[in-house]
Amino acid sequence: MFKKIRRILVGKPLKNEALQDQKMGVLWGLPILSSDAISSVAYAGQEVLMVLIPAVGILAFRQLSYISIAIICLLMILMLSYRQVIDSYPNGGGAYVVAKENLGVLAGVTAGAALSVDYVMTVAVSISSGVEQFTTAFKVFKPYSVVIAVTMVILLMIGNLRGIRESSRMFGIPAYAFIIGMVVMIVAGFAKVSGGYVPPPAQNMPDVVKPLTLMLVLTAFSNGCAALTGVEAVSNAVPNFKSPSTKYAKRVLFLLSMVILVLFGGSSIIANIYHVNPSNGNAMLIMIAGEIFHNTKFDFMFYYITATTFIILVFAANTAYSGFPMLISIMAKEGYAPKQLSMRGDRLSYDNGIILLSVLASILMIVFKADVSKLIGLYAIGVFISFTLSQTGMFIKWRNNKGKGWMHRAIINGTGAVVSGIVVVIIAITKFKEGAWLVVILIPILILLIFKVKKHYEAVMRQLRLKPEEIANFDINKAVYRNRVIVPIESVNRSSLRALRYAKTISDNITAFSVVIDEADAKKIKEKYNSLNMDDIPLVVKYSPFRKVVEPMLKFIESAEYDYQNGDMITVILPQFAVKKWWHKFLHNNTRYSVEKELLKHKHIVVSVMPLQLRDDDFVLNNHKYD
Amino acid sequence: MFKKIRRILVGKPLKNEALQDQKMGVLWGLPILSSDAISSVAYAGQEVLMVLIPAVGILAFRQLSYISIAIICLLMILMLSYRQVIDSYPNGGGAYVVAKENLGVLAGVTAGAALSVDYVMTVAVSISSGVEQFTTAFKVFKPYSVVIAVTMVILLMIGNLRGIRESSRMFGIPAYAFIIGMVVMIVAGFAKVSGGYVPPPAQNMPDVVKPLTLMLVLTAFSNGCAALTGVEAVSNAVPNFKSPSTKYAKRVLFLLSMVILVLFGGSSIIANIYHVNPSNGNAMLIMIAGEIFHNTKFDFMFYYITATTFIILVFAANTAYSGFPMLISIMAKEGYAPKQLSMRGDRLSYDNGIILLSVLASILMIVFKADVSKLIGLYAIGVFISFTLSQTGMFIKWRNNKGKGWMHRAIINGTGAVVSGIVVVIIAITKFKEGAWLVVILIPILILLIFKVKKHYEAVMRQLRLKPEEIANFDINKAVYRNRVIVPIESVNRSSLRALRYAKTISDNITAFSVVIDEADAKKIKEKYNSLNMDDIPLVVKYSPFRKVVEPMLKFIESAEYDYQNGDMITVILPQFAVKKWWHKFLHNNTRYSVEKELLKHKHIVVSVMPLQLRDDDFVLNNHKYD
Repeated sequence: MFKKIRRILVGKPLKNEALQDQKMGVLWGLPILSSDAISSVAYAGQEVLMVLIPAVGILAFRQLSYISIAIICLLMILMLSYRQVIDSYPNGGGAYVVAKENLGVLAGVTAGAALSVDYVMTVAVSISSGVEQFTTAFKVFKPYSVVIAVTMVILLMIGNLRGIRESSRMFGIPAYAFIIGMVVMIVAGFAKVSGGYVPPPAQNMPDVVKPLTLMLVLTAFSNGCAALTGVEAVSNAVPNFKSPSTKYAKRVLFLLSMVILVLFGGSSIIANIYHVNPSNGNAMLIMIAGEIFHNTKFDFMFYYITATTFIILVFAANTAYSGFPMLISIMAKEGYAPKQLSMRGDRLSYDNGIILLSVLASILMIVFKADVSKLIGLYAIGVFISFTLSQTGMFIKWRNNKGKGWMHRAIINGTGAVVSGIVVVIIAITKFKEGAWLVVILIPILILLIFKVKKHYEAVMRQLRLKPEEIANFDINKAVYRNRVIVPIESVNRSSLRALRYAKTISDNITAFSVVIDEADAKKIKEKYNSLNMDDIPLVVKYSPFRKVVEPMLKFIESAEYDYQNGDMITVILPQFAVKKWWHKFLHNNTRYSVEKELLKHKHIVVSVMPLQLRDDDFVLNNHKYD
Repeated sequence: MFKKIRRILVGKPLKNEALQDQKMGVLWGLPILSSDAISSVAYAGQEVLMVLIPAVGILAFRQLSYISIAIICLLMILMLSYRQVIDSYPNGGGAYVVAKENLGVLAGVTAGAALSVDYVMTVAVSISSGVEQFTTAFKVFKPYSVVIAVTMVILLMIGNLRGIRESSRMFGIPAYAFIIGMVVMIVAGFAKVSGGYVPPPAQNMPDVVKPLTLMLVLTAFSNGCAALTGVEAVSNAVPNFKSPSTKYAKRVLFLLSMVILVLFGGSSIIANIYHVNPSNGNAMLIMIAGEIFHNTKFDFMFYYITATTFIILVFAANTAYSGFPMLISIMAKEGYAPKQLSMRGDRLSYDNGIILLSVLASILMIVFKADVSKLIGLYAIGVFISFTLSQTGMFIKWRNNKGKGWMHRAIINGTGAVVSGIVVVIIAITKFKEGAWLVVILIPILILLIFKVKKHYEAVMRQLRLKPEEIANFDINKAVYRNRVIVPIESVNRSSLRALRYAKTISDNITAFSVVIDEADAKKIKEKYNSLNMDDIPLVVKYSPFRKVVEPMLKFIESAEYDYQNGDMITVILPQFAVKKWWHKFLHNNTRYSVEKELLKHKHIVVSVMPLQLRDDDFVLNNHKYD
């Protein structure tokens, strides 16, 4: 039944051949890769205001303009830096790869850990912001924010388990719809005030205005940096572009930067004109849209802005659903994460990674009540750590290779590295109390865990590796074990007979083994067994008041009676009832699992599981000679 | 690590021999078996008032006296009935046994289902009431009622997984302490008013008094019937008494009835004098204790009453922890419940039953917010259904056997049956809306499930059973399979070599099988394998883009290349990495489980799991000939 539900939700398994990415040009590449970056417009400016308004009141709007300019400068530096990453890594230059290749394993793993944290935050922040946009327009849903947010994550999870990657062009349209909507809103905003409209005075501004400290400005700036998360997406995705891929990628990166410039800059100016106060969990963009379009004949634009902003934020979260599982699958393949994270599921998606991401993001949203202002403290720091490592790696690369024009290139990436590094320090200091401490602690722990995992896999590898002389001298005919079989028998029935027959085919040294609770029980099974006439397979009966099997069996194996010789292999045959209905599982095989688990702790015991198919009806088993 | 936590919480495994119940006399038998019954005094009277006060106000207290008298009469009838059960079933006459033996399987199963529901309710009501007593005395804890209640259930669960049964005499002392405290309170209550004390007028009584309808009285009576749950405990426990056990059991039953009479009757009268109003989730007993002892030099008695009432209620819940797992283990042994419920855990307790009971009771307490008034609607109906079935069974027994004085005995049990049956109908009607509907629906569903389980086990049994001629004609030497072995190989390493060596010991028809992602991969494994010089074990290499093993293997088995003959048994050897640290489990064996699960769906495939012990350090494996 669970399987059926899974089928309905997740779809039929796909053939391996289905994994064929569609290559992108500029037209589709821009919207597909941009949703994470451009959607930040929906919360970055607003969270700058949220820091400033309580302190400096109405002056916050002017400060927002200055901070926006700083962030746009930062964007330009990053764009130039990442153009060079695209050129150098046409196979995809994620921070993990770039840092590992140029700075060594520790830096690579640090970038991997930082990025992993960032992907989780991308889901949590984008979905929470999406829900905030929606509930600002439809206030009646405000109390259900957390529920809606978690539901969205579950839907994303199901979608990604189904492998929505296939139809990734679908993701292009909403990005264009959002960009167009935003541009229209910005233009309409200017037009409306030019037409003589006077926006109402700012609401709920604090009466007492505190002095504007450097700390305050930097805190606001830290929040604004969330606008730049996602710029690295293009450089990771170079191989997904049509040929010449680096050219297309660079063009998309440039356009993406221009889009962010226009939307972030434009919305900051508009916010300055309409000075709406996004407190009490209201979304700034939606409030501005309300100011501009409500009570006009363009009221529908208000809903258009709400819908496209919501959708683009959900899509932004979705980018983490391809990035995170892919990143940890690469790490898992290299032994830096548990192997099962590197395996694709039925639908060719990395199921375990997708589920892990959804669980972590949901926990964050529940703990922080899907409140963007609270979550933003944990965001951006991970991204900027990976920016710094990636750019530093590039700088080292130029310095070592010293190709044509290396100096020029090194300066660009070096500037990128220094600026990103400064941002990391600023965020870590200003947002430490607001949650950055969590990330600051979490990343070293993750790094430690990653190395522990790697160390374990390496130890295993060493133990499994064969020396050349071992391979050369190997002679299987001289290396066989002495195999002895034990068949645990609950009663003499069709299942035990089948196990005995199988035992006979794999060994000549077989013992049937039974536990009984009392004398009568013992007598009964002995009599029935003896009537089978199996002189060469002795039946050993041991007392065990609660029919526990493992302990008496191990005791028997160790006893002089069994005469275990060092090096003997003992095969224990356990029947497994294969049942037709899902709930029948609860009725069978419970002993099998626990017995198997206990026995497998002993390295000389092989557990052979023999399936036996059961019916639920009265149909008599075919009395086939070999059933 | 989980194992360690379990060890600390649950204790070391016990040897089977440790299960030796201490036999009881009257002195210990009374308190040990009475906690469920006598603790009802803490909520039964109060819940009668809770029905009456909103309707008839102060008149409720007089009605309580009348209802108490009716309930005490009911108690006497049940006591006389159960004395006869004790005489007839010296090995323990639970309703399930008595009904099944005399009325047939359906009645037995119905009694079993009703009792199961009742045991869950006993835990939920007793613990909720215990917490109510406590929070009435210490109001600051009121908001945490549900948390405290669930914590208590978890503690009971852990205690019972540890097997607290061993020290069951411990349970005797609080029962006596409670009885003594209650008697002192009743006497002190009379003494105080005799000494001229005038209790304050009743608080929060309704202004408008409605007429007292029959429905109202019967609803109140239904709540009062909760006082009688637990009387059957003595007749279930006859074998636990010293010899002559039936004599001691009957004496204890008599004393128990007298104790209930005194405590329930006494507390009703005292409530009538002090007329406290137990609304807003306050406990009547504790309010009375407050009235009597607060602001006197006997103030400590208030805390004594609170503590002993709380403890006795927790102990009452604990009786369900021995009753429920025992009942379902008996049913499971007879095939009426999943087999794993019949198995004792490490500490000789029925772990699965204990956990199931805890989970169900916790769910109920969470759903009903640990509110006794809400839970009481579901209570008592289950008990009275089992009373009815048990007494009807006894009546039929006398009518059929017709021994000496059978008429007399039949009349007693017949009266018990009729009266209990009437109570069932009354509760079902009056409390239907308040939750009895849930029980009324649940019990038939449980009965259906029980029969489904039984039917399945019977079908399995039929399929496993051997005909006498099959046993007589069985010749194992003619029944062996042709065994062929497939060894999946990920790479040529120590683990695969070990699997191949084992394969060689059990068969001469072996195929090594490997999946690769590309040509280079294929070439690599082929070269390395060929250097092993195993001419008689061919290596089959198949392409599988994501290294999925099962599908290509099954395809290979079905192919002409493999030449599978009907009746062949195929053994697939899978390595299982035995790791030293708990978290290493997450790093290994994930494929093993899924591959095993898929393969075992095929009845001709045996899966042999070969353990391989891994270390986490650099220690090189002993190069033992047979490691």
